[in-house]
Amino acid sequence: MSHLKNDTFLRALLRQPTEYTPVWMMRQAGRYLPEYNQTRKRAGSFLGLCKNPDYATEVTLQPLARFPLDAAILFSDILTVPDAMGLGLYFAEGEGPKFERPLREEWEIRDLTVTDPAGNLSYVIDAVSQIRKALDGSVPLIGFSGSPWTLATYMIEGQGGTDFLKIKQMAYARPDLLHHVLDVTAQSVILYLNAQIEAGAQAVMIFDSWGGALSHAAYREFSLQYMQKIVAGLTKEREGRRVPNIVFTKGGALWLEAQAAIGADALGLDWTVDIGDARRRVGEKVALQGNLDPAILLSTPEAIEKEVGNILASYGKGSGHVFNLGHGITQFTPPENAGAMIEAVHHLSKKYHQ
Amino acid sequence: MSHLKNDTFLRALLRQPTEYTPVWMMRQAGRYLPEYNQTRKRAGSFLGLCKNPDYATEVTLQPLARFPLDAAILFSDILTVPDAMGLGLYFAEGEGPKFERPLREEWEIRDLTVTDPAGNLSYVIDAVSQIRKALDGSVPLIGFSGSPWTLATYMIEGQGGTDFLKIKQMAYARPDLLHHVLDVTAQSVILYLNAQIEAGAQAVMIFDSWGGALSHAAYREFSLQYMQKIVAGLTKEREGRRVPNIVFTKGGALWLEAQAAIGADALGLDWTVDIGDARRRVGEKVALQGNLDPAILLSTPEAIEKEVGNILASYGKGSGHVFNLGHGITQFTPPENAGAMIEAVHHLSKKYHQ
Repeated sequence: MSHLKNDTFLRALLRQPTEYTPVWMMRQAGRYLPEYNQTRKRAGSFLGLCKNPDYATEVTLQPLARFPLDAAILFSDILTVPDAMGLGLYFAEGEGPKFERPLREEWEIRDLTVTDPAGNLSYVIDAVSQIRKALDGSVPLIGFSGSPWTLATYMIEGQGGTDFLKIKQMAYARPDLLHHVLDVTAQSVILYLNAQIEAGAQAVMIFDSWGGALSHAAYREFSLQYMQKIVAGLTKEREGRRVPNIVFTKGGALWLEAQAAIGADALGLDWTVDIGDARRRVGEKVALQGNLDPAILLSTPEAIEKEVGNILASYGKGSGHVFNLGHGITQFTPPENAGAMIEAVHHLSKKYHQ
Repeated sequence: MSHLKNDTFLRALLRQPTEYTPVWMMRQAGRYLPEYNQTRKRAGSFLGLCKNPDYATEVTLQPLARFPLDAAILFSDILTVPDAMGLGLYFAEGEGPKFERPLREEWEIRDLTVTDPAGNLSYVIDAVSQIRKALDGSVPLIGFSGSPWTLATYMIEGQGGTDFLKIKQMAYARPDLLHHVLDVTAQSVILYLNAQIEAGAQAVMIFDSWGGALSHAAYREFSLQYMQKIVAGLTKEREGRRVPNIVFTKGGALWLEAQAAIGADALGLDWTVDIGDARRRVGEKVALQGNLDPAILLSTPEAIEKEVGNILASYGKGSGHVFNLGHGITQFTPPENAGAMIEAVHHLSKKYHQ
């Protein structure tokens, strides 16, 4: 059991007192960093980076060498689980992720089985171990997975989308089939996240990137219900410490009350919601993580500092806030602007923690 | 002043008693209808349809010949105003709308001037007159425009998008420039919608397709504020009748209270919000229009009837509800499923109006 030099992030997730508001950035190891692009070039591809624990460790640590971030996050993809199920994840140049063999036929869905992370996902688990070792107790390591609904959108559509017509057609015409996909996926995600925790992840996050495309009722039935099952199945303590979990539905700020009731430690927020309103709505149930629009990092250090200040002021005094973007940092971000945001968070937040 | 045989839609928008819940569908004249595709083929292109009042009249009336809809909507595009400003609207095959000359330089923005609808937009005004005549008092005709923010996204990005990085960069780094674009556009939209009303539109709708991409604060500053100015500038009475207006921000259900305060008669809802919750939140201030997920029309008549029933039950007793989809009908919809929805609305809603 290694000593953690900076556990601010973990304490904030559990709404324990901290000296300042901790900060990390979704997709903080990414294309906005020249050093990332160099490693990616050596690896040959994005999947080459993900599937090689040495490369994954290297890029996970890059943003920490530049910025005083309060957490590291495993470098991986949200779609590793369906890839391990045999659907064939690939990235066409300049496009988003796709699957070679999306689920089209009823028998393909009935044949889906729960994935053992010790098998086709061992490269992720190895990366977690190696990153945790390399971090050497500096900051906590976050493990993660896609949510069952979000994974199922790719598994059924074959790619990302905006309309989600295939999966929604299934949701309304054959809900039994979709529930089978979601159930097998949720069970796989539980095993996957617990294996990450076993290997050294000190917090875990569930990314529900496409939950916001659902109706209020369908969100509860096809997305939230399965995240609740995952939260219930997660390892809650390891190395004598609570392992907090974060649930984030992009586009889901309308449904925060329902999200706060599933037993998660913290909720991610996108930028559409005022974080002070969000705090009043969820009460003492959960911590909140967010929520600067990543587009703001394309403006000026002055504008960034002002917007960071607005979010901190809106959240107000006390713990329970992890500062983050409301979505992944864009590849067009000048790294110095990311640095300005992090400095502003650390500097401006101290007065809210006295 | 012609007599209107079916004014259920107009009465519902003003929260006056009706015998049933009126229904129309966003994009009801569209690619899911074989007769539309035939007319479009003759016209040569989508813009060919929009710019020829004969064709626009023909396709506007097509869905009314098939279904007992309670309103007609002008067949046009939301981007006519910036096209009239000289930005060069075009449609690349299989892609969304684009502009040949998006606003890139400060001088281009400073040179923007308010568009007189009697000039480059006369084809739209002619279409409104002709459609109104062809409807012969059967159902009311809805005129429409894009919202200033939504128009500005295309004017500055050059096309639709998901990240809106260019316009957001301007919003945070040079808000003065963006406010100039929005102000000129809002003034143009007021003239445009009033010209449609003058030509015979009996209700008008403002489509804020991309307002939901903004932060809570930026939405108020860059989108809602300008829709409020438009609502204030609209002609409110014509032919001895109130001309109701509808404001619809897709992805904006989190901000309904703010929308209900701008003086609009009705708010459009996408499917993310429970319409009963929405009604409780806006109180007696506005009517509500929505909110079936258009993907549901790809399922079965039984599933459609069930979901229609859920929405009607959630809204509950009394007037003030116009049934609609939460977004445009998709091109893959079997027309008979649209018919099943309309029949279900008319049939199931009667008990809520006794």
